[in-house]
Amino acid sequence: MMTPEEYEESLRKLDLVVYMFGKRLENVVDNPILRPSMKAVAKTYELANLPEYEDIMTTRSHITGKKINRFTHIHQNIEDLVKKSKMGRLLGRATGCCFQRCVGMDTLNALSIVTYDIDKKHGTEYSKRFLKYLEYVQENDFTCDGAMTDPKGDRSLPPHKQPDPDQYVHVVEEKENGIVVRGAKAHQTGAVNSHEIIVMPTIAMREEDKDYAVSFALPSDAEGIIYIIGRQSCDTRKLEGDTIDTGNLLYGGHEALVVFDDVFVPWERVFMYKEYDFASSLVEKFASYHRQSYACKVGVGDVLIGASQTAAEYNGVEKASHIKDKIVEMNHLNETLYCGCIACASEGHKEPSGTYSVNTLLANVHKQNVTRFPYELSRLAQDIAGGLMVTMPNNQDFKSPETGKWLEKYYKTKPGVPTENRMRILRLIENLTLGTAAVGYLTESMHGAGSPQAQRIMISRTVNLEEKKRAAKKLCGIEE
Amino acid sequence: MMTPEEYEESLRKLDLVVYMFGKRLENVVDNPILRPSMKAVAKTYELANLPEYEDIMTTRSHITGKKINRFTHIHQNIEDLVKKSKMGRLLGRATGCCFQRCVGMDTLNALSIVTYDIDKKHGTEYSKRFLKYLEYVQENDFTCDGAMTDPKGDRSLPPHKQPDPDQYVHVVEEKENGIVVRGAKAHQTGAVNSHEIIVMPTIAMREEDKDYAVSFALPSDAEGIIYIIGRQSCDTRKLEGDTIDTGNLLYGGHEALVVFDDVFVPWERVFMYKEYDFASSLVEKFASYHRQSYACKVGVGDVLIGASQTAAEYNGVEKASHIKDKIVEMNHLNETLYCGCIACASEGHKEPSGTYSVNTLLANVHKQNVTRFPYELSRLAQDIAGGLMVTMPNNQDFKSPETGKWLEKYYKTKPGVPTENRMRILRLIENLTLGTAAVGYLTESMHGAGSPQAQRIMISRTVNLEEKKRAAKKLCGIEE
Amino acid sequence: MMTPEEYEESLRKLDLVVYMFGKRLENVVDNPILRPSMKAVAKTYELANLPEYEDIMTTRSHITGKKINRFTHIHQNIEDLVKKSKMGRLLGRATGCCFQRCVGMDTLNALSIVTYDIDKKHGTEYSKRFLKYLEYVQENDFTCDGAMTDPKGDRSLPPHKQPDPDQYVHVVEEKENGIVVRGAKAHQTGAVNSHEIIVMPTIAMREEDKDYAVSFALPSDAEGIIYIIGRQSCDTRKLEGDTIDTGNLLYGGHEALVVFDDVFVPWERVFMYKEYDFASSLVEKFASYHRQSYACKVGVGDVLIGASQTAAEYNGVEKASHIKDKIVEMNHLNETLYCGCIACASEGHKEPSGTYSVNTLLANVHKQNVTRFPYELSRLAQDIAGGLMVTMPNNQDFKSPETGKWLEKYYKTKPGVPTENRMRILRLIENLTLGTAAVGYLTESMHGAGSPQAQRIMISRTVNLEEKKRAAKKLCGIEE
Amino acid sequence: MMTPEEYEESLRKLDLVVYMFGKRLENVVDNPILRPSMKAVAKTYELANLPEYEDIMTTRSHITGKKINRFTHIHQNIEDLVKKSKMGRLLGRATGCCFQRCVGMDTLNALSIVTYDIDKKHGTEYSKRFLKYLEYVQENDFTCDGAMTDPKGDRSLPPHKQPDPDQYVHVVEEKENGIVVRGAKAHQTGAVNSHEIIVMPTIAMREEDKDYAVSFALPSDAEGIIYIIGRQSCDTRKLEGDTIDTGNLLYGGHEALVVFDDVFVPWERVFMYKEYDFASSLVEKFASYHRQSYACKVGVGDVLIGASQTAAEYNGVEKASHIKDKIVEMNHLNETLYCGCIACASEGHKEPSGTYSVNTLLANVHKQNVTRFPYELSRLAQDIAGGLMVTMPNNQDFKSPETGKWLEKYYKTKPGVPTENRMRILRLIENLTLGTAAVGYLTESMHGAGSPQAQRIMISRTVNLEEKKRAAKKLCGIEE
Repeated sequence: MMTPEEYEESLRKLDLVVYMFGKRLENVVDNPILRPSMKAVAKTYELANLPEYEDIMTTRSHITGKKINRFTHIHQNIEDLVKKSKMGRLLGRATGCCFQRCVGMDTLNALSIVTYDIDKKHGTEYSKRFLKYLEYVQENDFTCDGAMTDPKGDRSLPPHKQPDPDQYVHVVEEKENGIVVRGAKAHQTGAVNSHEIIVMPTIAMREEDKDYAVSFALPSDAEGIIYIIGRQSCDTRKLEGDTIDTGNLLYGGHEALVVFDDVFVPWERVFMYKEYDFASSLVEKFASYHRQSYACKVGVGDVLIGASQTAAEYNGVEKASHIKDKIVEMNHLNETLYCGCIACASEGHKEPSGTYSVNTLLANVHKQNVTRFPYELSRLAQDIAGGLMVTMPNNQDFKSPETGKWLEKYYKTKPGVPTENRMRILRLIENLTLGTAAVGYLTESMHGAGSPQAQRIMISRTVNLEEKKRAAKKLCGIEE
Repeated sequence: MMTPEEYEESLRKLDLVVYMFGKRLENVVDNPILRPSMKAVAKTYELANLPEYEDIMTTRSHITGKKINRFTHIHQNIEDLVKKSKMGRLLGRATGCCFQRCVGMDTLNALSIVTYDIDKKHGTEYSKRFLKYLEYVQENDFTCDGAMTDPKGDRSLPPHKQPDPDQYVHVVEEKENGIVVRGAKAHQTGAVNSHEIIVMPTIAMREEDKDYAVSFALPSDAEGIIYIIGRQSCDTRKLEGDTIDTGNLLYGGHEALVVFDDVFVPWERVFMYKEYDFASSLVEKFASYHRQSYACKVGVGDVLIGASQTAAEYNGVEKASHIKDKIVEMNHLNETLYCGCIACASEGHKEPSGTYSVNTLLANVHKQNVTRFPYELSRLAQDIAGGLMVTMPNNQDFKSPETGKWLEKYYKTKPGVPTENRMRILRLIENLTLGTAAVGYLTESMHGAGSPQAQRIMISRTVNLEEKKRAAKKLCGIEE
Repeated sequence: MMTPEEYEESLRKLDLVVYMFGKRLENVVDNPILRPSMKAVAKTYELANLPEYEDIMTTRSHITGKKINRFTHIHQNIEDLVKKSKMGRLLGRATGCCFQRCVGMDTLNALSIVTYDIDKKHGTEYSKRFLKYLEYVQENDFTCDGAMTDPKGDRSLPPHKQPDPDQYVHVVEEKENGIVVRGAKAHQTGAVNSHEIIVMPTIAMREEDKDYAVSFALPSDAEGIIYIIGRQSCDTRKLEGDTIDTGNLLYGGHEALVVFDDVFVPWERVFMYKEYDFASSLVEKFASYHRQSYACKVGVGDVLIGASQTAAEYNGVEKASHIKDKIVEMNHLNETLYCGCIACASEGHKEPSGTYSVNTLLANVHKQNVTRFPYELSRLAQDIAGGLMVTMPNNQDFKSPETGKWLEKYYKTKPGVPTENRMRILRLIENLTLGTAAVGYLTESMHGAGSPQAQRIMISRTVNLEEKKRAAKKLCGIEE
Repeated sequence: MMTPEEYEESLRKLDLVVYMFGKRLENVVDNPILRPSMKAVAKTYELANLPEYEDIMTTRSHITGKKINRFTHIHQNIEDLVKKSKMGRLLGRATGCCFQRCVGMDTLNALSIVTYDIDKKHGTEYSKRFLKYLEYVQENDFTCDGAMTDPKGDRSLPPHKQPDPDQYVHVVEEKENGIVVRGAKAHQTGAVNSHEIIVMPTIAMREEDKDYAVSFALPSDAEGIIYIIGRQSCDTRKLEGDTIDTGNLLYGGHEALVVFDDVFVPWERVFMYKEYDFASSLVEKFASYHRQSYACKVGVGDVLIGASQTAAEYNGVEKASHIKDKIVEMNHLNETLYCGCIACASEGHKEPSGTYSVNTLLANVHKQNVTRFPYELSRLAQDIAGGLMVTMPNNQDFKSPETGKWLEKYYKTKPGVPTENRMRILRLIENLTLGTAAVGYLTESMHGAGSPQAQRIMISRTVNLEEKKRAAKKLCGIEE
């Protein structure tokens, strides 16, 4: 397993093509906007090396028996699934943001199931290929980006009918030693912090779309891959130099559009090729795992609750009954989310491949709540924080001799609370509810791993309505 | 294990003193208002004897190794706790009401922990006594009423300061072979369907209250015990004879005020006596288990969802997008509840006595949601059902030659749907949202196992705010 | 204007054909189940005769200039519309139930507009006929039932395509002096307390449905009209004799299926005949007025809040911060409803006929909230009331010497609160949230004047999305 | 009345002491961060000069009879109050942000009432002074800042007990021709766009606090006044030059801390001086008016709904039933807010001074909803917008030849939708839900005109619980 320092060093060796603010970045790792995002991923390496988190953060590889970071593990039992949820909460609390590494873990697990199932039906050898690739990932303790979401173009048309055929990633050439792919993947969280990028289809497909039914892995700096970084609310505060105005001083996240400009993939890294009949299965397996992964938001919720309680104490109102009640409500909602990610794990099952899968229905129910509760938690946090959160001046005003004295004087509350600490905690709440972290805590909670309606469709499909109707009819005496 | 028939027979042998509508009942078992309630308890015997439910409904006694009904079992591991939640949902779905037997199971488990803990501290022998009693319960496959809630009188005063000292059950005389107790327990669900009644204190106590710190078991027909049945919305529809207007034709619930008019308890049935320092522990252990037990409402929710879907189909509107969406929402809420009862079990732990206990925080979070979601499920069910649910005439109007023809003509919807079936399913929804079952599905969901504020206090106590504050402060650079 | 006594007397003179529990009623007025419903209507006569309510309850006829009960008035200005909302709240608070008379008022107002509009387009003389009829209603201070909802049969088919042509009221014969009509109207609130019944179509119609495009007025005891009373939750408690268990001892509501078994209508009472192009207009005008009329639920909400506060005081918990907060929330929700019925009146406008109409969008928004908030108010009321509301014994148990003493002893709370009063207030809350009044406060709030989806469709139609899109595009620089 | 150009010119003449980012601004009007805020205020001048808005935006002065901008008007009747609400919605829709001028209007109206009331009791002449000042404001068509919120220091202590006596604005010296004041006002919206600043106390006071019971008006550039601008989420995007990333390209808002460093106020501008018994009255009158003023958020809601609908159309999903339903829900919530601000106006009353006041209870109910619904509207808008809102690259990436082609290619949806327009509308939604406008639409909705708990306290105080209790008791037969 890598140390966080080794991880950072390994990233420096990559030759990524990354654009931001219209220019190519020469140094991705030290870029002030991106660096907190790298540090958040590094946390997954740091905690794995600490004895107190060993049980949650590490396990033994089922292929080599070696100790590995859980983020590269294939779940072997219910306990693994439950620990995954706990790892998510732990890291969410430790970073206060998206730590980006779960998407690769979810992709590996989904592929472990589906490559096996394809082989069973089609007599292919994807599973063997995949396990070899998995060993490589585990040995190197890599961070992988699992890339699913295509741009989709005209949403009323399937891939093969799009005016621009590249709106979904597809094979444009088959060579002896591999394939050439073209297209793009949007909203790629943590893309430039990854060593590997693993591509999957994004929707169910029919035969006409078979060139789009493709899954493969690439080194993140493979020739032809271009990253264009998305901007976030308040992103440029990180460029303002030494400031408390970023709120979270340590960690962050990022998303990128990843363009595949005719990239070559050798056969040994291809895990699905034209088996369109398994596209939906791969999407659903990945989606279920990834909906479970929103366990992380419980950890971010912990931070927001802790910040709100601290703000209340600094304001001297923590004993007001309405404040106490709002803190209880925040905890109640946050723990209700926790119940979801624990239950979908606890109710998991073994797939034919041997991999353990979460309960699809409950994973969708969990994620559906994630599209709601963080917004209410944010509202309550803003209620508790008070209006100063959005009206207090810039950090430079605090440092300026002309204005600092006034701010120090008039933002003072009760004795023993340094005004600066009050500012710090309010900036953190701003960060989580309006700033860079709100991107992850709110909007990504809404759309990541599928928008709310996607979960509702899955709930509708997986729930057993007939059983419920039978139960009802029996009680009121309806015989049909 | 008893069969349902043996269970019914065993009840006939009891000599209970039961009052209803101002008169003593001569035959409790066959009373038309109470009988559906007895049948609901009988379902716990019936399913335990069916092979398809053996795994969930039965287990092996940890004291005798014999196969027993899970309702008399002491949880020996996490799996036991999870199966308890599933058993609750199963029976809730099978009966569409409160099946009344969980309260005894929860009492037995709480006592298994607390008698052990008292002995540890005080060198008493309650645990041995209790285990002997437990064996007796298991051998006979008894249904036990766990009686906690005292009338409480003036709520601003502790037990020993009440103007009327009997507002909390207490010892009025100590004899050589036992004690004499006086007082009452309110809201006793399923009381007259029980073989045994096990009394516990209802609040934390101090030394001055030590005569109130008492726990014991009695045969339900012990001399001096009086039951007064509470009335329910629409209770007398059961007296109307052959009718579909009761909605749930098979099962129901009941509550009673149980009066202890100087009842003698032999020492071997006393499990706490003046150890006031363990009153709160017993209350909390029981409460946590019992809050988990609201898993049953998920099963009742299944019935309500099934009834709503059926009503929509009978009305011919099941494909309208707003109807489909409401059904999804009902399922989403119901499964969110399910997550709670699974998670608090899955996150359980072993007590010093060896008994497994649920996670207190999550059990409270679960119950808190139970005080909310069934109301919203009911609202959605009424939305889907349509207004006819509350405006359709009496069953006798359907049977009458003068009016039946009009009802048959004008309540007809699409071909293939017998009007009577439409009426039946609407009456079931009425039963669950306004009628006898609403007492259990709504109001009991609100107040059973503690009113909402009780859970909020427990959430407040058990959540680790300091950890959350530390996490927040670290991220924004506050060092204190 | 009639006195309440005269009103009751006038009903005795009617020869209505009413069925309940499978039998024809010989005396409608004194029937114990129906009488509270009649008393609720009588309240509209009583208050109109009291000087303190004169301003709200009465006005001057715009046709005769005479003082009339506002329930027979055609709104002449915004103030009339606002007073209508206030009258609804006043009577809802005075009766704690549906007082049934608004539907006639709303019908008269809708017809005053639409008869005028039909005449304008088709050169007919409905308006003159209608005004003559209106004068007759005003002079006699009649209660009118406005009958809109047809049974609808197969909801996927229009009236003329129904397998049974009578699923919508229609003309079956045209005679020289009038028409003969057949069909039924469902959910008719207050039907048997009405002197007149005024029929309207229930949906928009096309030419093929023209025989269904008919509106007319009949004396409620016209030959061929049959009433079948719908049953309500807890209806038969009213038959138990002197009891506090009915909760609301004074007032109630009722609904009936009204069958038109080939009833003759003279021309002078026909207000629409085959003008199918005005069916939707009449439906919409009536619906908007009637959605405003749900102002009454604010008054019922006042009763529920008052009962909850009283219960809290009797329980001795009214100063607990969570109780106070729940009372605030109940008031907040109730007054939010009030804002809706005031705003749709205040934003009303004059129709070509001179009649003032409410704002359609806001009336629908108001009613939509009525389909939600009373349910949450009920949930909060049950929270505050405590579980005793559904577990306390029958009134006869209180009176019985054997059990009364125990109930008196154990349901006592703090000094100065008679146990009976505590029972009374809890029974009232039960009545409003589960019993006969819940039918009106909850389910009727859901479906009366159109189910929630009907309002959503109207909101969608009446809101100006283009204006909003223009505003948004302008701000972000989109020019199209 | 001024034109917008004259307004801008008038601001240039002010000599304000404004700090931002630690430095004094030399040119406030042209500062790119502040200019959109000034332009929003200018809109109140622009619309007042357009004939189509004359009725809403202008009226006649009750003191001079001259045509004036409604923002300087004292409400003379209910219609004035209703038009004020409509003016708020109009300008909110026109600017998509806080236009800052209502606070001065609300202050003037509150002072018109309270100066009259003080004079009545204390025989002072504040009213005459005030009316003279009012005429000056009306004649010059000034924008006034109404300054209420003091920093408050230790919130458990009253003003005179604060360790730092300046935590509330107070008189530090009385001179022959006036007074000298010291302190600060926080969260001052639109402060640097104002000609005048009118100070009021922020809480009820007792005799010991009488030096803090002071109200007065100052030119905004009076000697000793210092403005320190608060920073907002995404504020520096406005510094990025020609960009669509600001979302709202035209308008914005700002808040400032206003420090009074021993400022002299001549007597003719003092409207309260030591009459501590009227502090709470002034606070409450102002608060009620200002809570009504949150009518503006309905207008901002219009923009958000328009933007969401546009985004849905650009994404090609506007016909999906769940999207349509979410748009209906957004409208429903927004119009429910509208009902609140209309109803509190429509139910207004005349004060002894002749000024019309809003209904206090309903104004508080309205504002309470404003602390909730915009958050849900934002959540729904983010749901509809899709994840791209927070992952799309910087405007410079769109313009860059290296990356622009990829963005153009992969962010294309259906034909006819320029990619840039899609970006624009998403940036507007980002602006409203996370960016500079979210400060006003969300956090200011929460805390402006008083935090939610302040409204709950007022609801609790103004609602008539006794009347409700009486109504309930009467119905269930309780006589006390």
